[in-house]
Amino acid sequence: MPNTIYDENLEPGPANFVPLSPLSFLNRTASVYPRQIALIHGDRRLDWAEVDQRCRRLASALSLRGIGRGDTVAFLAPNVPAMFEAHFGVPMLGAVLNAINTRLDAAAIAFILDHGEARMLFVDPELAAVASEAIAQAQRGADIVVVDIADPAFENSAPIGSIEYEALLEEGDPEYAYSLPANEWDAISLNYTSGTTGDPKGVVYHHRGAYLNAVANAMAWELGQHPVYLWTLPLFHCNGWCFPWTLAAVAGTSICLRAVREEPIFAALAEEGVTHFCGAPIVLNTLANAPESVRRPLSQTVQVMTAGAAPPASVIQKMEAMGFAVTHVYGLTETYGPCTLCAPQPEWRDLDADALARTKSRQGVPYHMLAGLMVADPETLAPVARDGEQMGEVFMRGNNVMKGYLKNPASTRKAFEGGWFHSGDLAVWHPDGYIQIRDRSKDIIISGGENISSIEVEDVLYRHPDVREAAVVAVSDEKWGETPCAVLTLADGATTSAEEIIAWCRDNMARFKVPRHILFAPLPKTSTGKIQKFVLRQQAEDLIHGTRGG
Amino acid sequence: MPNTIYDENLEPGPANFVPLSPLSFLNRTASVYPRQIALIHGDRRLDWAEVDQRCRRLASALSLRGIGRGDTVAFLAPNVPAMFEAHFGVPMLGAVLNAINTRLDAAAIAFILDHGEARMLFVDPELAAVASEAIAQAQRGADIVVVDIADPAFENSAPIGSIEYEALLEEGDPEYAYSLPANEWDAISLNYTSGTTGDPKGVVYHHRGAYLNAVANAMAWELGQHPVYLWTLPLFHCNGWCFPWTLAAVAGTSICLRAVREEPIFAALAEEGVTHFCGAPIVLNTLANAPESVRRPLSQTVQVMTAGAAPPASVIQKMEAMGFAVTHVYGLTETYGPCTLCAPQPEWRDLDADALARTKSRQGVPYHMLAGLMVADPETLAPVARDGEQMGEVFMRGNNVMKGYLKNPASTRKAFEGGWFHSGDLAVWHPDGYIQIRDRSKDIIISGGENISSIEVEDVLYRHPDVREAAVVAVSDEKWGETPCAVLTLADGATTSAEEIIAWCRDNMARFKVPRHILFAPLPKTSTGKIQKFVLRQQAEDLIHGTRGG
Repeated sequence: MPNTIYDENLEPGPANFVPLSPLSFLNRTASVYPRQIALIHGDRRLDWAEVDQRCRRLASALSLRGIGRGDTVAFLAPNVPAMFEAHFGVPMLGAVLNAINTRLDAAAIAFILDHGEARMLFVDPELAAVASEAIAQAQRGADIVVVDIADPAFENSAPIGSIEYEALLEEGDPEYAYSLPANEWDAISLNYTSGTTGDPKGVVYHHRGAYLNAVANAMAWELGQHPVYLWTLPLFHCNGWCFPWTLAAVAGTSICLRAVREEPIFAALAEEGVTHFCGAPIVLNTLANAPESVRRPLSQTVQVMTAGAAPPASVIQKMEAMGFAVTHVYGLTETYGPCTLCAPQPEWRDLDADALARTKSRQGVPYHMLAGLMVADPETLAPVARDGEQMGEVFMRGNNVMKGYLKNPASTRKAFEGGWFHSGDLAVWHPDGYIQIRDRSKDIIISGGENISSIEVEDVLYRHPDVREAAVVAVSDEKWGETPCAVLTLADGATTSAEEIIAWCRDNMARFKVPRHILFAPLPKTSTGKIQKFVLRQQAEDLIHGTRGG
Repeated sequence: MPNTIYDENLEPGPANFVPLSPLSFLNRTASVYPRQIALIHGDRRLDWAEVDQRCRRLASALSLRGIGRGDTVAFLAPNVPAMFEAHFGVPMLGAVLNAINTRLDAAAIAFILDHGEARMLFVDPELAAVASEAIAQAQRGADIVVVDIADPAFENSAPIGSIEYEALLEEGDPEYAYSLPANEWDAISLNYTSGTTGDPKGVVYHHRGAYLNAVANAMAWELGQHPVYLWTLPLFHCNGWCFPWTLAAVAGTSICLRAVREEPIFAALAEEGVTHFCGAPIVLNTLANAPESVRRPLSQTVQVMTAGAAPPASVIQKMEAMGFAVTHVYGLTETYGPCTLCAPQPEWRDLDADALARTKSRQGVPYHMLAGLMVADPETLAPVARDGEQMGEVFMRGNNVMKGYLKNPASTRKAFEGGWFHSGDLAVWHPDGYIQIRDRSKDIIISGGENISSIEVEDVLYRHPDVREAAVVAVSDEKWGETPCAVLTLADGATTSAEEIIAWCRDNMARFKVPRHILFAPLPKTSTGKIQKFVLRQQAEDLIHGTRGG
């Protein structure tokens, strides 16, 4: 392009160009709201000035141990203060935070430590045993410096590391002067996908994307200053969907939470004045079905953001009846968590509760900072009709799409083929522009040449008053190729029969979609609470057609 | 820096890197909220889909006339729809919007047209006469394509251009497919500073900064979706402080306003459900002093953002008593408008109304997206003590600092010396981290070696119940070098004497700061409503010491 008058003598410099990094938010908030409470864990309260100093200490102490730009620092911990602080202290050095899923087994953790080339591992006492085993299994285990995170609010096990977290912070300088990354494209974190098959892939985030998605969260949720946020969502899950950085931007208060159970959640809502939390539909389901004895009256409206699976309309409806306001978002590890939003429209006020809940269970429209979203043919990338019928794959493009998969150029190239990120999720596109996920590509059921969305069938099942959880998978069928099989758990005391469930389905869906088989059994789940359909498929197959090869 | 595992095979591409541009917000909002009203002007209502199409038509029509990347397109118009649409239609081509101050005289406009190398000029009928004169005076006047913006809601004069705005739009394609700029550092707009002396300087904004400050506005104001925004702030003033882009991001409604007078403002507040507006303190002053007959009761709390001068505490207090909520921000043309915010602190709830208004009249803390703010020695750049006493110059650094001055490398270099933007404003830094402007460098009064802040004296004067407007300037004095002179206008019917004013000052400030001279006279103002101290200084000098050289 030829130069214009606007291209001359108008170069970026330190006065007018600063790399985008969520560290800037911590810096501002510690200075503007130093006494505002940042973290609450049990009896412990840390304000933003203290958290800033602790993060600087962490960076300084890591720097003294030789950690620097591009080094991986792994954490294996539930939602405790150290885990939150790691989201700032580690990137202050240009190092990369690898928050590991705490529900993985030792072999998977060992794989991640090796593949991510972790130089340090911080471990919560609850995870000391699996961490020790993982370190023993990892090829580079002997080279990893291990730090124990003692928790006065928890029964501590014997240390497995060379130093304790608070002692490490003591080594550091609370005034440590760090620099923002020279390049906003520099990596900030590494998150392994809990892939259902094969080795996990390491999704790399950068400072620019973390900054922008942190802000997009605030815009999507219309977040003002000083929300009180309860950590029901694991911090290892897409960096808590980028919310540590959002909370720094809006000077919010984080309530730590070791275990996602009804009692401590209701207690925090009632006692700490929680205004916001995030969670997979399974968390909402738990709250919606909590016994009266643990429920607590709420004096505030609590905003709930849910993602990770399509929330059944019935769960949304139950939550809203209890006084929660549910915002549905959707995304993947590869999109820094949420990248679509079921943005409410003014005319939805006229819908009845049931229709509203169904409308809200759609995945919606692009997040404020996602540049492109489409449902399109997986091969040609031609967008499907916006008719709510034609199915296609969901594609995204924007600054909140990952940097790529670590040390995996083939997968990265494949994921970005055609200049769009291939989500692997199948959806329809409604006339109002809202997308609705029908299935993971691999979960679709093809029966007699017709596509059946397992999610659509599940949604009908969830609306049955006796159904607590439902999953629909394909089982092989001589005549149809595949047929749908529903696996259910029922509400306490319910005795509904398979015949009654099938009758319910016949009344509520096209005949060819009605499950041929109904099983009552517990549902296998991944470490993040997602139902493991590949396990369920095998179980259903075995039960219906007998164990193969066994 | 040596490469790390995070630097390899993880390059930006179209799937994961999109240049930041506020055009993305229009694109999203037109798609997510197509039927939401974007613009109201008299009886006319345009929704976001229509505005998007009109902007595409504008871009397409300009493109047909050869306008492209780096070309300057000038507008001379009040806050009418075309002016709003220009903020999107012009940058869609990579062209640069130059919104010219409508209160300038023909010579100043001619200078801007020449210096900015405008290829087109869009003119509102109200400004046809001055535009014609400016074009006649401009060296390149003959080469400028002129477009008339007819306004059915206004008495139109004879056209001066070759085509009317709506006819031009008819030439364009409503589906015109534009590209975001290849580089987010590309210029988006050109704003001439209304410098008090010398030729105006052309401040260049880029897409990245416009995007980020648009979002920062939303964060500073805790703006949810769909605010109803009244355009009291001129769109030619720092691109309406970037609010056209903010409103696109949050799908707000803009109420156009040709004349900033009490009656239409109160009418819009009452009839259109306005929730937000911005304005210089002079606008607030006008509303606070409006006669009962034009005031209208408000059923909503109206959020007011004020900047452009330090709002006198008494004006804030009057506005809040009327039911307005005042947010005080501060910035310069060079910082895309607002770059600091007087962010409220929880403990301010305990202040009485008077103390609160004074606390709120400070300029405050960095905007969410300003990376650095300091009060420092103008020569050494050493920060002053945070004691509320020591004066220094205000310095900023961040992505919302201009690209530089057009065709003026010497001024650009000087403005950015030492890696910070030199604001030319003098301030103190309070212990709580809030800055407070004491004066423009050139407005400070030095009396007997002591610095006197004219703003501090004015603030005391404004608290006098009979004072409507006050300005304090230096006049020469044989003994002291300079002494303060106050020029006042009084409230209707007030008859307060100079002696009474001096007595009031003695009771409320250090003796050496008390004005030696009190004049009752109208205050000369710039086109943006700022009091012209350099004019006033000369007038006061002439009145007190007799006309010099005449």
